[in-house]
Amino acid sequence: MPEHLRDHERPFLAFGTEIVDATAPYVSAYKPQAAHFAAAGAEDQLVQLIAHIHAHYPNIPVILDAKRGDVGSTAALYAQEAFERYGADAVTVNPYLGHDSLAPYFAYQDRGVIVLCRTSNPGSDWIQGVMVDDEPLYLSVARQVENWDQNSQCMLVTGATYPEELGLVRALVGDMPLLVPGVGAQGGDIHAVLKAGLDTDCQGLCISSSRGIIYAGDGADYADQAAKAAQELRDAINLVRSALSDSKD
Amino acid sequence: MPEHLRDHERPFLAFGTEIVDATAPYVSAYKPQAAHFAAAGAEDQLVQLIAHIHAHYPNIPVILDAKRGDVGSTAALYAQEAFERYGADAVTVNPYLGHDSLAPYFAYQDRGVIVLCRTSNPGSDWIQGVMVDDEPLYLSVARQVENWDQNSQCMLVTGATYPEELGLVRALVGDMPLLVPGVGAQGGDIHAVLKAGLDTDCQGLCISSSRGIIYAGDGADYADQAAKAAQELRDAINLVRSALSDSKD
Repeated sequence: MPEHLRDHERPFLAFGTEIVDATAPYVSAYKPQAAHFAAAGAEDQLVQLIAHIHAHYPNIPVILDAKRGDVGSTAALYAQEAFERYGADAVTVNPYLGHDSLAPYFAYQDRGVIVLCRTSNPGSDWIQGVMVDDEPLYLSVARQVENWDQNSQCMLVTGATYPEELGLVRALVGDMPLLVPGVGAQGGDIHAVLKAGLDTDCQGLCISSSRGIIYAGDGADYADQAAKAAQELRDAINLVRSALSDSKD
Repeated sequence: MPEHLRDHERPFLAFGTEIVDATAPYVSAYKPQAAHFAAAGAEDQLVQLIAHIHAHYPNIPVILDAKRGDVGSTAALYAQEAFERYGADAVTVNPYLGHDSLAPYFAYQDRGVIVLCRTSNPGSDWIQGVMVDDEPLYLSVARQVENWDQNSQCMLVTGATYPEELGLVRALVGDMPLLVPGVGAQGGDIHAVLKAGLDTDCQGLCISSSRGIIYAGDGADYADQAAKAAQELRDAINLVRSALSDSKD
């Protein structure tokens, strides 16, 4: 948190609003991380931040990064939290409890449900990569989510740090959009991600940089630094995407 | 929520406090479900409810049922939420992101980390039951958690609705305590759970009934009804446990 905001009455809201206003020209979605607000007891500021995005940038969807996963009756409450309390357009969820743990989210047919598949962190391999019927578990998850997705409202989380696996997921799920964290601070490579992950229309990726944008600067000009980092990332993505699109034609 | 509490200024706190005060003689732990408070934007009432338990019943631990699961840097924030903001003695977590997603919880060495293993809901089988190296995935999870648990602070969630699987987990993890939801509203059988799940000292189970207790009544006497249901469940557990203990001697 930049120094001049540390004594702010609502520091998360102030920080987030300035980041949003500075980066809006360059982004396709916002993905606030619920844990930052939860750790500080600042949920009200998250409500206000998302309301700010909806009010000022109605064409930019908000993904609540919450990674919830619970039995059906409880999942219904978490769906209510994400979609009604926070007004999120989509929410990230965990597949480990199966279909009945996701059904309450599917019931909100105008919202997105983004299921963890192949996460970007180093320790995920022991479980996501285990072989099940000659394919790694994360591909079984992708296959299952595709079956469950009767309303074209699902996406899959596939980390930029595993571009080869990202390509296997893409090959399996057709044009289902993928949410790709791990570019930026976690070191994912843009060219490898786009090459492996774009769909047949050279679309279908929502590439997320979090720390690489919001912590681009830590001084009074942090929002300008964030805008600069967002613009650079957008330009880098579009450059590679154009090249790949041209080479395809 | 009983009618006389619906207009209460802090209904979740009032409801929870009355349930706690009425049931305290009969319980070994409290397990508040974070989603109920999150859906209603009532996190402050959860903070106060847990503080009430600690202040009045210091020997009864509080398990925050949050089922969080996220990459390391974010998991550190969720651990802060559970252990510092809420002051929980233990928290439920999801294994799908692997060790680095749990390490921040392990760092709180005086707190419990309760990992989802074989959950009680019907839809969990497709992933938790897949065969990996000749054993179902949930047993791989149990094995892995036992390896990770360098500080004897872990438990596993193993639903009462699958007593046979509960027995397989018990056989694998020795005396690691198990958290067993699914008794009560979800229909799990106490005798089958105890027979399969008790450790060699006839201990090691934390059996959870949630809806069966807190919704035992819905009138003005709901707390008394909850106490009655808690006492009946405790007595039923102890009766079966005595019988099993006698038959073992």
